[in-house]
Amino acid sequence: MQYHVNGRLVPREEATVRVEDRGFLYGDAAFETCRAYGGDVFEWAAHRTRLERTCETLGMGDAVPEDLRERIEATLDANGLSDAYVRASVTRGVQPGKLTPAEDVSPSVVVIVKPLPRGGVEGESVWDDPAVVRTVERRRIPEASMPADAKTHNYLDGILARLELRGTDADEALVRDIEGPVAEGATSNVFFVEDGTLKTPSLAGPILPGVTRAVVLELAAERGIPLETGTYDVAAVQAADEAFLTNTTWEVRPVATVDGVSVGGGPVTEQVAAAFNERVEMHYLA
Amino acid sequence: MQYHVNGRLVPREEATVRVEDRGFLYGDAAFETCRAYGGDVFEWAAHRTRLERTCETLGMGDAVPEDLRERIEATLDANGLSDAYVRASVTRGVQPGKLTPAEDVSPSVVVIVKPLPRGGVEGESVWDDPAVVRTVERRRIPEASMPADAKTHNYLDGILARLELRGTDADEALVRDIEGPVAEGATSNVFFVEDGTLKTPSLAGPILPGVTRAVVLELAAERGIPLETGTYDVAAVQAADEAFLTNTTWEVRPVATVDGVSVGGGPVTEQVAAAFNERVEMHYLA
Repeated sequence: MQYHVNGRLVPREEATVRVEDRGFLYGDAAFETCRAYGGDVFEWAAHRTRLERTCETLGMGDAVPEDLRERIEATLDANGLSDAYVRASVTRGVQPGKLTPAEDVSPSVVVIVKPLPRGGVEGESVWDDPAVVRTVERRRIPEASMPADAKTHNYLDGILARLELRGTDADEALVRDIEGPVAEGATSNVFFVEDGTLKTPSLAGPILPGVTRAVVLELAAERGIPLETGTYDVAAVQAADEAFLTNTTWEVRPVATVDGVSVGGGPVTEQVAAAFNERVEMHYLA
Repeated sequence: MQYHVNGRLVPREEATVRVEDRGFLYGDAAFETCRAYGGDVFEWAAHRTRLERTCETLGMGDAVPEDLRERIEATLDANGLSDAYVRASVTRGVQPGKLTPAEDVSPSVVVIVKPLPRGGVEGESVWDDPAVVRTVERRRIPEASMPADAKTHNYLDGILARLELRGTDADEALVRDIEGPVAEGATSNVFFVEDGTLKTPSLAGPILPGVTRAVVLELAAERGIPLETGTYDVAAVQAADEAFLTNTTWEVRPVATVDGVSVGGGPVTEQVAAAFNERVEMHYLA
């Protein structure tokens, strides 16, 4: 396997950053997780836009290289991959040893890939089973402390949430905001169905605006599925007729249980998943 | 300059971690900033204890190597340094590509050093002038989202606070908690003097328990300076008779102004700084 580091393809074991890179010292870096389907990066424009916005939040608005997509494609090609997981990171690089960032940035740019199964109508899911979800004590960082739409290498809140699942049968954490309502999973957005209406926490809360979340909302609207975004308690998800999680790698993943309460997928989840697969399938027809 | 990476001394430019190291991917790492005075690491026991506690919080309680102090001393020796800045990091290392940490950890251990001036009675301060402080909008992450006593590579809250100072004359941010009271600086603890009493925000708030903060409280108690820890608004710091900041590299640094309001050091600040220098001086007499 070869990765792409600062403009060069290098063998995986030699793909490194300096220990003085601020991406290492402070998690001072933006990233995106993408999927390539049939050699195409899915929803590239949305990922690039979010990556640029994150860099803007970090005060390095021009850090994303113009040719990032080409670097990703070169990495996929070098590894003979057309269906793959892609992680692209842009760090503030090495700067003089102070916490205050210098305005002049020489970013480090890293692309990591790994094979994934084919997606789309004929594809198979990355996950084996529906998600087993547990509500955790750790809360999503409030907007006043960290902008929720910034996707950065500061990912310990998600890790601490997942650590609470140790010793349980759960594989995703349901994370609330500090006021109590549901925010999201550690690495996923949450959807549920109540009386035929598809519901998901509104971006007014401290919620990462997931690319898959946006695609699902668009597809549901196109298909006339009643939609609502709002503020919801854990009890609403537990009592839902159906629930599913979304993220780039999982796509649409049904929720088996929430805190031991059976929820499961159902007709709306299946309709959304089918629509998503059709959208992905277009990448294999092009 | 040579750094210490995973048990080996390596030239600075070759001191790297793999891009798959979780310390890089997620800031999934603990660290300490220490000072060496006359070849001795100051307050090593306190730093090691906090590093172990941070690793415990991150679910990798055994990750700190037994011989970390020896690795630091070897790094100082290799560079001929006796007065130095030392940064020691312990990451969760490389694990299979999932966010949920595996229990079996092969930590990456990194020691970075750089020269600093001599400390103590005959020393000179690292800072040129008293601090110019501004209150920022970004708030300290609440305890419910991230334990404040964990010192990790997730340091973007401090960086975002410092970014708000761009274009101002300030060099340290005064960060409040989400309820409004003063928490700390981006990289420092805050002390102020009111009617002869030395005051600092209590650890009941979301405040890093600074090693220098603890030494200052101990020295002030020994010298009979009236002490109070509590919850204070920005206005109290602005109206103070004296104010100073503490951290490992700055030691005791007077505050010139807060939001443009003159505060300055004074007799209590000088007494504390002198006591601190005497404590440090012991490392040169040993």
